Amino acid sequence: MARIALDVMGGDLAPTATIAGALLALQELGPEHSIQLIGRADVVRAELDAQLAGAEPGVRAVAGRLTVVDAAEVIEMTDKPSVAIRGKPHSSMAVGLRLQAEGQSDAFVSAGNTGAQMAATTFILRLHEGLTRPAIGTLFPSARVPVVVLDSGANVDCSAAELVQFARLGAVYAEDVLGRPNPAIALLSVGEEAEKGNAAVKEAHRTLASASGLNFIGNVEGRDVPMGACDRGPVDVVVCDGFVGNVLLKFYESVPKLLFGLLARSGVSREQLAGALQGLDYASHGGAPLLGVKGVSIICHGKSSPVAIKNGILVGHRTAESRMSEHIGQRLAATAGEATA
Amino acid sequence: MARIALDVMGGDLAPTATIAGALLALQELGPEHSIQLIGRADVVRAELDAQLAGAEPGVRAVAGRLTVVDAAEVIEMTDKPSVAIRGKPHSSMAVGLRLQAEGQSDAFVSAGNTGAQMAATTFILRLHEGLTRPAIGTLFPSARVPVVVLDSGANVDCSAAELVQFARLGAVYAEDVLGRPNPAIALLSVGEEAEKGNAAVKEAHRTLASASGLNFIGNVEGRDVPMGACDRGPVDVVVCDGFVGNVLLKFYESVPKLLFGLLARSGVSREQLAGALQGLDYASHGGAPLLGVKGVSIICHGKSSPVAIKNGILVGHRTAESRMSEHIGQRLAATAGEATA
Repeated sequence: MARIALDVMGGDLAPTATIAGALLALQELGPEHSIQLIGRADVVRAELDAQLAGAEPGVRAVAGRLTVVDAAEVIEMTDKPSVAIRGKPHSSMAVGLRLQAEGQSDAFVSAGNTGAQMAATTFILRLHEGLTRPAIGTLFPSARVPVVVLDSGANVDCSAAELVQFARLGAVYAEDVLGRPNPAIALLSVGEEAEKGNAAVKEAHRTLASASGLNFIGNVEGRDVPMGACDRGPVDVVVCDGFVGNVLLKFYESVPKLLFGLLARSGVSREQLAGALQGLDYASHGGAPLLGVKGVSIICHGKSSPVAIKNGILVGHRTAESRMSEHIGQRLAATAGEATA
Repeated sequence: MARIALDVMGGDLAPTATIAGALLALQELGPEHSIQLIGRADVVRAELDAQLAGAEPGVRAVAGRLTVVDAAEVIEMTDKPSVAIRGKPHSSMAVGLRLQAEGQSDAFVSAGNTGAQMAATTFILRLHEGLTRPAIGTLFPSARVPVVVLDSGANVDCSAAELVQFARLGAVYAEDVLGRPNPAIALLSVGEEAEKGNAAVKEAHRTLASASGLNFIGNVEGRDVPMGACDRGPVDVVVCDGFVGNVLLKFYESVPKLLFGLLARSGVSREQLAGALQGLDYASHGGAPLLGVKGVSIICHGKSSPVAIKNGILVGHRTAESRMSEHIGQRLAATAGEATA
């Protein structure tokens, strides 16, 4: 039984896309699961009533598993992260995360201000012992199965010790949420050899090579990410700092746009192309968990459509049900004695 | 009149692809230009004779503009960079670059060991005053015109001052070799705002914002690179450290491979696809100049085909004829008094 808190006010298309996403998610989730709609109660109720008025009976039936939780304040996309902690204590983010901290919710999902969500999550849910930073684990579409890339934007400057922490976080994420036993963990670098990389990567490589409980397969290069594999076999998790991860993520996001241009000129139809590139659509992969916090906080893209919100909620559900956060805590405790870099 | 030295021994497909590329290049270059074939004279002559034996009269006619320069040693792909300087003083790289240092050649082109080429070039041609490192400027295909990304692999750890140097090097490259007056220079980061980025990027941004003689347009994000533009207009040069640049470059190189897989399943024909993705082919853009050295040293991909070698030679030709290196020296001297970060 999972109770998932959705930040109704977050995202460029809120509250329409968030409410629509919640209704879609409930139709996929079993009847024991519920969604808490967090936001200004008048706005939430008005949007919900409007969407239910013209809805099919099947949609109206799942609405009984929705509850509205009032949050008087709204965090804007332009607010600084600190606003989420001190400036607006009654924001939908703060209210949703506090519900979880108090044991009344199992996961938080938002398409709102990412910096604010990271700050509020870290402040309210707190980090697992042994961690200095949370990381965002994003799924990159690949020729094989999606690859977890972390950190994809929470930390622009990372120490070797933090890269090692990310490897441990990514491993549990891949196991619990993606269902990949013994996932292959790789370090992103400029060459396969252990001595290739910048200072932090080289140092992290040395630590990972002797780390226990991790299937560390060594360095991979940029080309291996879209392939989901390197010469030595499949890759499940790619570890990098948040600067590199964020640049790669945004680069990848704009590739379909480039291709539409290139292929349109060659006479390929838009339908063929749209079908082919569907696998590259971020929305089909849902949100990215903020890893390392004691709890579940799912970061969705600001431009999330109803389907993207629905998928974010499903990721929140899987993350909560698999008890990923608890497993991260256990894993970190078990390796607390090891050097981290 | 340009005399271009080609490392016949360098690259996975050498000497066949290198000799073939030289013959292709001469057919495109005016009759005043010549190519110096650097390598083991017996190997070079045998390969040249074999290719000329069955060639069209037009091809045999250009062979008069080839000269063979003997170099007894060969740098292997697995040799360490230092080998190029001390271990093998008679390598095709060392011989070709020394010809240029002695005023007997105008450009050097190689598809061989990149690390060795960077080391040998820096050692033999030397850096312009005011520089601490050379940078590789690579052309990334975009929806608009190709974008210069530098550094794309020469330096894995970069200071803010080095990023500022790269901006100056990239500007002259875009002007001279790509013919773009007043090129738009951007800094790659994780957000448009000046305060976004890692420590080196933020510091470089502050310096670039007040640098003279540069059309600095601020930060761009990963998504802007394949577009060749950002919200504020076109982008000609993207500055980043060599770790990020190399990861992006290799990532981009494998995107066509991924797409062949995705699109094949959707019924798009291989011919349509090959035509559409031709623009993403590195070979069509030729080699990447090692920027900052006093002279011309063009780095080609190790897997260079004859066409890629030909394009590398043409880049060497344009780089030499435009006097890019001289202009870099002048520009650096003119701004020597400015803070570099």
